[in-house]
Amino acid sequence: MANARKRWEEQTLKPALSKSPEKPIGAPSGINCDEKGNARFTTLSGVPVERLYTEEDLPPDWSEHQDQYLGEPGQPPYTRGIHSSGYRGKLWTMRQFSGFASPEETNRRYKYLLAQGGSGLSVAFDLPTLMGRDSDDPESEGEVGKCGVAIDSLDDMETLFSGIDLEQTTVSMTINSPASVIWAMYLAVAEKQGADWRRISGTLQNDILKEYIAQKEYIYPPAPSMRLVVDTFEFAAHHLPRFNPISISGYHIREAGSTAQQELAFTLYDGMEYVEWALRRGLSVDDFAPRLSFFFNAHNDFFEEIAKYRAARKIWYRVMTQRFRAKSPRAAWMRFHTQTAGVSLTAQQPKNNIARVAIQALAAVLGGTQSLHTDAYDEALALPTEDAARIALRTQQILAYESGVTKTVDPLGGSYFVERLTLDMEKSAFAYFEKLDAMGGMVRAIEKGFPQKEIAEASYAYQQAVEAGEKIIVGVNEYMMEEPQPQILHIDESVREAQSSKLKKLRRERSNEAVARSLLALCHAAEKEDQNTMPCFLECVKAYATIGEICNALKKVFGTYNEVTLS
Amino acid sequence: MANARKRWEEQTLKPALSKSPEKPIGAPSGINCDEKGNARFTTLSGVPVERLYTEEDLPPDWSEHQDQYLGEPGQPPYTRGIHSSGYRGKLWTMRQFSGFASPEETNRRYKYLLAQGGSGLSVAFDLPTLMGRDSDDPESEGEVGKCGVAIDSLDDMETLFSGIDLEQTTVSMTINSPASVIWAMYLAVAEKQGADWRRISGTLQNDILKEYIAQKEYIYPPAPSMRLVVDTFEFAAHHLPRFNPISISGYHIREAGSTAQQELAFTLYDGMEYVEWALRRGLSVDDFAPRLSFFFNAHNDFFEEIAKYRAARKIWYRVMTQRFRAKSPRAAWMRFHTQTAGVSLTAQQPKNNIARVAIQALAAVLGGTQSLHTDAYDEALALPTEDAARIALRTQQILAYESGVTKTVDPLGGSYFVERLTLDMEKSAFAYFEKLDAMGGMVRAIEKGFPQKEIAEASYAYQQAVEAGEKIIVGVNEYMMEEPQPQILHIDESVREAQSSKLKKLRRERSNEAVARSLLALCHAAEKEDQNTMPCFLECVKAYATIGEICNALKKVFGTYNEVTLS
Repeated sequence: MANARKRWEEQTLKPALSKSPEKPIGAPSGINCDEKGNARFTTLSGVPVERLYTEEDLPPDWSEHQDQYLGEPGQPPYTRGIHSSGYRGKLWTMRQFSGFASPEETNRRYKYLLAQGGSGLSVAFDLPTLMGRDSDDPESEGEVGKCGVAIDSLDDMETLFSGIDLEQTTVSMTINSPASVIWAMYLAVAEKQGADWRRISGTLQNDILKEYIAQKEYIYPPAPSMRLVVDTFEFAAHHLPRFNPISISGYHIREAGSTAQQELAFTLYDGMEYVEWALRRGLSVDDFAPRLSFFFNAHNDFFEEIAKYRAARKIWYRVMTQRFRAKSPRAAWMRFHTQTAGVSLTAQQPKNNIARVAIQALAAVLGGTQSLHTDAYDEALALPTEDAARIALRTQQILAYESGVTKTVDPLGGSYFVERLTLDMEKSAFAYFEKLDAMGGMVRAIEKGFPQKEIAEASYAYQQAVEAGEKIIVGVNEYMMEEPQPQILHIDESVREAQSSKLKKLRRERSNEAVARSLLALCHAAEKEDQNTMPCFLECVKAYATIGEICNALKKVFGTYNEVTLS
Repeated sequence: MANARKRWEEQTLKPALSKSPEKPIGAPSGINCDEKGNARFTTLSGVPVERLYTEEDLPPDWSEHQDQYLGEPGQPPYTRGIHSSGYRGKLWTMRQFSGFASPEETNRRYKYLLAQGGSGLSVAFDLPTLMGRDSDDPESEGEVGKCGVAIDSLDDMETLFSGIDLEQTTVSMTINSPASVIWAMYLAVAEKQGADWRRISGTLQNDILKEYIAQKEYIYPPAPSMRLVVDTFEFAAHHLPRFNPISISGYHIREAGSTAQQELAFTLYDGMEYVEWALRRGLSVDDFAPRLSFFFNAHNDFFEEIAKYRAARKIWYRVMTQRFRAKSPRAAWMRFHTQTAGVSLTAQQPKNNIARVAIQALAAVLGGTQSLHTDAYDEALALPTEDAARIALRTQQILAYESGVTKTVDPLGGSYFVERLTLDMEKSAFAYFEKLDAMGGMVRAIEKGFPQKEIAEASYAYQQAVEAGEKIIVGVNEYMMEEPQPQILHIDESVREAQSSKLKKLRRERSNEAVARSLLALCHAAEKEDQNTMPCFLECVKAYATIGEICNALKKVFGTYNEVTLS
């Protein structure tokens, strides 16, 4: 049968196809062609795509070993999902990443989003906060409140969640190097609200490895950073059974220009590295691994993305059970948040982004995401307006309630194309794992600049293809038009001024002695590798030590990190 | 294996699922529930959807008889598409339905759409034109240029296509009862441009059956109307080898509230009725059937719609080869245009429609449409603004160039869910065919009010579900908000005034004697069943007889139609 098809393709189809033009009729010239004008069909990540996929593209034992390739949803290897009832039992969390200007301002936006039917919150912090700097730090100039909310002390965190019940609302926090500080503030606010830590749920991004690989928002060197992460694992395992202390993030790796395959492989391998470090601390895999969570990008290539999510579940199951001998089923569940690709948004003709985001979000849902952020159409220009933020949320609601795609679990299961892509994704991830193992793990690979270089090369190749017009971006290199300057939301320096005067007042009114004492205790704890730092972070924030003070204190113990230069 | 799964579901899964709440966690109450609160998972059309689809949901001989169930794309039964290379060889035609106000105004919009990368035109006519009335007819008051462009005579048609090369541009015309008149005008314009009729391509909607069933824009009774349609088939077969003289339309059946299954069955059965009438005229199926084309709706239920398109191809192949003994492969090709569901657009929060349309359009593309109209987001309010019309077109371009879904043919082939839906669609269509056959064909069924009643019942059931909150429409019965009145494009009575004075001038300047002569000749031809009326229509329009004059003349021969009352 395979031969019959091949023969037919060779004899009948190829001559016919070769007569067809070098690009699909109706398409701009250059598309899908290499520089010599030869037709080239690939995924967005450059993987060749065949004209047709049939049963013959599946492994010969596909039907016989369905349980190993696919399994039931809710059953290993979880290719079709971690829950047997999919979205029939529980929809994904509609969690819009949001934060800007002052804590007061962001608090208002959160209440708006919750009133519009958002089912969780996701905090965007500004650059100074991400870098562990206070708003009045000279280096913070021009950045306070710009790309997220400015948080300097517990006081700001109290304002941020004022009137929001943290036992009822799951909150995700995109913070990495200073994750312990921010988490401590969050837990202190919850405590002040009278919330039971055992009942609050949410996610701390806290993924420092991808900072070294892609995002570049790091403070300390890898080793002490990894230790802080493990401290949060241990603390969560003891005190916060429903909180994810980490969200291992491919999102930023992809945004930096990686392929889907690299995003998948590096992210899951980062996960393996965290597991290794936690095991070395003496934690039991079945205790902490159920709370590891992931975060992926939803980029333009519809089917490639779906295959990525499906493969990720299967790979993580294999890794956790075979490599780490996890016994608890939940320790092998790959649970993930998805955000549509910020990098795919165009500043040109911004409302076109609503269509882009809808398609990307559909891929995430068909891939079985647990939680989703849909980008606002004006995000490529500035912080989203309320109008754009609402339309983004409505896009999720339309998918959930109108499109019908939630009615059955893994609706694409069995598609010859999707299953083949899923198998190939898995294969390419394990090929990367082998390389990374040979280098001695991810921290070593980062020191050698390996993932950084792989991503840089992929990013360069993509840019070349766009510049050559081989890949079309609607409104950017084709279908352009003159357009007026759009209305955008500007954050001026007044946020920095307001935060700075709050800080001045704070430093005048708090017990600076208590602050100094708590910082000293934290540094002592940091020096001892077997002591969990989380209780000390909690003491610091409760004394109203600022994020800058805490991070600066730790820099003296840990040092700072300088980027590896790529050869 | 089937038993093992069933056992597991009964013993393990059901008790677990029954503990889950009556609606998906995170969803508004009532959704997916019947009035007693029992969970109910169905497609938009009310077909039950199972929790999971696996290999076991396919027929036992699925693998063995792939060629009968699926076939290669470009090979019978065409389930996977009529072209072996899918969109790799040729993209779908991006054809935006458009027309408003005067011919001058619409001509400008056409040039804009073509400049933005649209690859075909699709003319929307105003209600008077659709009803065969002149603009200065008293009954036309308030409607001239409102929902489409006003065309009274050849003079208007010349203006409409001024500066647009009809040999290079495919044009679709949504006109039914007066289709012969409009087509004659179009052919006369082409002739005046010096275009070769044998090279012009396009589509005439010309589907009178669905007018009686759903859209209600008819003039004459069924029998003479069907005869006019057959005249166009014959004329096209002789003179216009690249023109589709009909677009058999499910779109309006669906818009009237039918299910997807009814849309599919009634439309294909309408096609069969046209074939029957053409065969009775003595035409050869292999001569005229290759130019029959179809037109479907792309509604909200993503997978149900994809299954509908895939099933339609397979059913039409079976019907044409088995029932009508077509020998030419093209005579069995189901080629179709798709439009996203106008009825699904909401006037509330109109920009949400951009997301709806993107998802619906993706379904049409994954179903292999030959041509696509994406609705503009403000169409539920009024005629689309230029901004909205452009975004709608950009949505298609994003699907074509950014989403990657064009890279392989029928990417969903093999999906257990999609294949099962496709098989069930086919079955439900043949069940309707049996009923319609028993009634003696579609004209008889219409006279009995059968399809009308089926659609009315489906529409009522859907409205009930929306009112009960069992089905959610975002922004309409959930997630509502206060909003300001949007900016919309208004057409005032000045179009009617301008058209009326053009008509006055026309009647003064043309040879009214030649008009009278041509109308008389048309009436004589109409009286004889074996004479093709198209040459007479051409004579009338070339003498600048108006659409109203021509249709009124024919009414005297054919009579007019009064709707069947439903019991």
